[in-house]
Amino acid sequence: MNIRFIINIFGRVLILLGLFMLTPIIWAFVYGEDTVGGILASSLITLAAGTVMYFGSLINLRKELGLRDSYFTVTFTWVVISLFGMLPYIFTGTIVGLPNIYFETVSGFTTTGSSILTDIESLPKSVLFWRSLTHWIGGMGIIVLVVAILPLLRIGGYNLFKNEASGISYEKLTPKTASTAKRLWGVYVALTFIMTAVLMFGEINLYDALNHAFSTMATGGFSTKNESVGAFSAYVQYVVTFFMFLAGVNFYLHYHFIKGRFKRVFSNVELRTYVTVILTVTIMIALVILYADHAPIEHAFRDALFQVISIITTTGFATYDYLQWPTPAWTLIFLLMFVGACVGSTGGGIKVIRHVVSFRNVVLHFKRMLHPNSVSLLKINGEVIDDEKVSSLITFLVLYLFTFISGSIIMVFLGTDTLTAVGAVAANLGGVGPGIGTVGPASNYYHIHDAGKIVLSFLMIIGRLELTTVIILFTSMFWDKYR
Amino acid sequence: MNIRFIINIFGRVLILLGLFMLTPIIWAFVYGEDTVGGILASSLITLAAGTVMYFGSLINLRKELGLRDSYFTVTFTWVVISLFGMLPYIFTGTIVGLPNIYFETVSGFTTTGSSILTDIESLPKSVLFWRSLTHWIGGMGIIVLVVAILPLLRIGGYNLFKNEASGISYEKLTPKTASTAKRLWGVYVALTFIMTAVLMFGEINLYDALNHAFSTMATGGFSTKNESVGAFSAYVQYVVTFFMFLAGVNFYLHYHFIKGRFKRVFSNVELRTYVTVILTVTIMIALVILYADHAPIEHAFRDALFQVISIITTTGFATYDYLQWPTPAWTLIFLLMFVGACVGSTGGGIKVIRHVVSFRNVVLHFKRMLHPNSVSLLKINGEVIDDEKVSSLITFLVLYLFTFISGSIIMVFLGTDTLTAVGAVAANLGGVGPGIGTVGPASNYYHIHDAGKIVLSFLMIIGRLELTTVIILFTSMFWDKYR
Ligand SMILES: [K+]
Ligand SMILES: [K+]
Repeated sequence: MNIRFIINIFGRVLILLGLFMLTPIIWAFVYGEDTVGGILASSLITLAAGTVMYFGSLINLRKELGLRDSYFTVTFTWVVISLFGMLPYIFTGTIVGLPNIYFETVSGFTTTGSSILTDIESLPKSVLFWRSLTHWIGGMGIIVLVVAILPLLRIGGYNLFKNEASGISYEKLTPKTASTAKRLWGVYVALTFIMTAVLMFGEINLYDALNHAFSTMATGGFSTKNESVGAFSAYVQYVVTFFMFLAGVNFYLHYHFIKGRFKRVFSNVELRTYVTVILTVTIMIALVILYADHAPIEHAFRDALFQVISIITTTGFATYDYLQWPTPAWTLIFLLMFVGACVGSTGGGIKVIRHVVSFRNVVLHFKRMLHPNSVSLLKINGEVIDDEKVSSLITFLVLYLFTFISGSIIMVFLGTDTLTAVGAVAANLGGVGPGIGTVGPASNYYHIHDAGKIVLSFLMIIGRLELTTVIILFTSMFWDKYR
Repeated sequence: MNIRFIINIFGRVLILLGLFMLTPIIWAFVYGEDTVGGILASSLITLAAGTVMYFGSLINLRKELGLRDSYFTVTFTWVVISLFGMLPYIFTGTIVGLPNIYFETVSGFTTTGSSILTDIESLPKSVLFWRSLTHWIGGMGIIVLVVAILPLLRIGGYNLFKNEASGISYEKLTPKTASTAKRLWGVYVALTFIMTAVLMFGEINLYDALNHAFSTMATGGFSTKNESVGAFSAYVQYVVTFFMFLAGVNFYLHYHFIKGRFKRVFSNVELRTYVTVILTVTIMIALVILYADHAPIEHAFRDALFQVISIITTTGFATYDYLQWPTPAWTLIFLLMFVGACVGSTGGGIKVIRHVVSFRNVVLHFKRMLHPNSVSLLKINGEVIDDEKVSSLITFLVLYLFTFISGSIIMVFLGTDTLTAVGAVAANLGGVGPGIGTVGPASNYYHIHDAGKIVLSFLMIIGRLELTTVIILFTSMFWDKYR
């Protein structure tokens, strides 16, 4: 194990984190809050730790990571930033109880957006800004992960997505991974500021606009309002809807779009399926609402569209408590938690392309049943995907289901009722945030058993890092002959 | 399409069915019931239809079935026997309403055991005997299917099970499929009569013993008592538990056992996993019951063991309403509905070996992540299983899940509450019988919407015939260029 280089990486990450941690101080000054000391202390501690780790590991540094080192580093980067990310809450005394603070911080960096806050608006605005910022930082981390790291590690079939599914070979896009990451970061940052600007045409101030833009582009879901996006006008709701939709699209496609490669974007199989699912489910839910409530058509459609896009992109904002809808409507919402957004986006969960491959594999299976002697192939965006890749991809689905079921059993044994257990696990493993049962969009995770909060935080990290990255650390074969 | 031969096959099946239909008349005489006319008429109509179909198709008969013909024939055999199997209920006027009668009959032949009867004991004993007999006939059908037909059609990975998973190559066992089927039928019939005899050492009469033996060996679950097996003594309950366990074991292994090949039996991976799961879950549930109720230890253990074996084998008998247990206990019971018994048994559902292969595939995936350049293989009972077979097998899991979810959505849209919808679909697709929600073991399916009953009957057939056999009939590619 190249401990030295791993510490060096953690050092760099912490220095970056410490710098980000300074920005909430601006808002403390703007709103005249007494949180400056607490936040500054947090930042300095993080910067100091980062600096010591970075420089302390520089001597004789060998910049190489083996496969195992990589899995270890990816998982523990999220753990390390979550630990230091807790400091602003601790030093400002705004959240009480370490399990609560850990839950809220992990939920931020994993862009899950589950919260233990019972009254969000009672917190200082500077601390809420840090809370939204953890989403945005997490989102940046995801982009590096998806673009640069997961494909190299062949995790969850990401080697497949990078080349075939997104329609682009990495080598064709740009010769250096770092450069690709920077381009996609550019798209991410640009969309965040465009969204902030567009929001401000509505009745919303810069602070709220920026917070919601962070939260939206990271598909996070933390809001600065108790009523979430329901606190704002229809205009704001539509803008958020549109940018949530964009945040759920493969960022490679955004880049192609900017470069004017429209055909490549609109012929993308995953994007087409994503749009089709959104429209189909929105119409079904709007009809169910209209049938039950006789609500105004525009309102029913807006609520349905917002909630559908919020859940499928795993953002988790709300403009309405979907649990108040008739059963068929919220059953569909619950199922959307297992769909997920597009690969290469900041969204979590299973992701659309895996469902597409899985469905085409079933079709392929039927073809082989009818024509056992002819060769049938599975193609995505015109490229053939072989049996081993399909198997690796479906393995992800099996593992996801297994983790979902195990998590639910643990929660039930910790005393949670079945519906809440299932809803909480689906929502946190999938990075959505609000679930069903007693953890719906009108509620929060405050009342969950402390042990349950730790389990759910763990599921957030597992889900965010595409399962295998984390789970492999718990296998005996990982530690065999590994020093 | 070789319509002539398909009709010929249906003719043979109906003649057999008509003969079986004569046997309840014995019980009508024994108990002096006025059902003789109705049952006799049903039998004669069935025999007449069978005879006409058989002899009418004999001229120029070409005894060949293509692949598509086979899928078609397998599915429609179950539909045809279900239609004629309704006659005894219709002509004796013992069940009212065609959807109810169809539901009860399909539930019988598919060995599901879901019932719409609100007061079982109010029915004539001769009719209840026919009801149990539909299970037993269904069980015989399953054995032919599993031994002779599915492996040839390569359905759900059955070609894999036949050779590797059960540890026997078909050719080694006996040179003719028909002969194999007869041997396993022999095991089935022998176990049924042994069980009847063993039961009669307890306080139970021949009629009830025989009915429950039919129901047990077919993993059916129809009882002659409103309280199911809870109506009988602890002795009877333990005997039923033991034979349910046996009915869930691969019948090839029974045959090997009789032939004294113990090592082959006890080294079987699926059998070992099946036993391990039963013991683990039984202990967990017994502890939950003891912790909550302070019940006598023997009683808690007996109830737990009975319910666990009843559900994992997909029999569906009850000695206790598991929905009255604490949430963790019935959550485990619900999950067992997705485990299923061993392949080559009369049990339905997913089956243990598919979980084993799926789990080993995940392990294989981890191995490949750690050692990308070395060759890792998946082995079951010492034989290698290649990527295509694994893919075909996991495809079954994906399709099962897809069918489960689609079925649940349809039930919810028909107005069923979520828990009941999920429970009913899991229980009927898996061939279990009782579910959760309002269709638990202490309840029945009478109150379900008529359309829901048809949907559930359909799911019973889909589940019983290993999904793909039936679902392929609904694909456009099946009917392309097929006359
Ligand atoms: K989220
Ligand atoms: K059953």
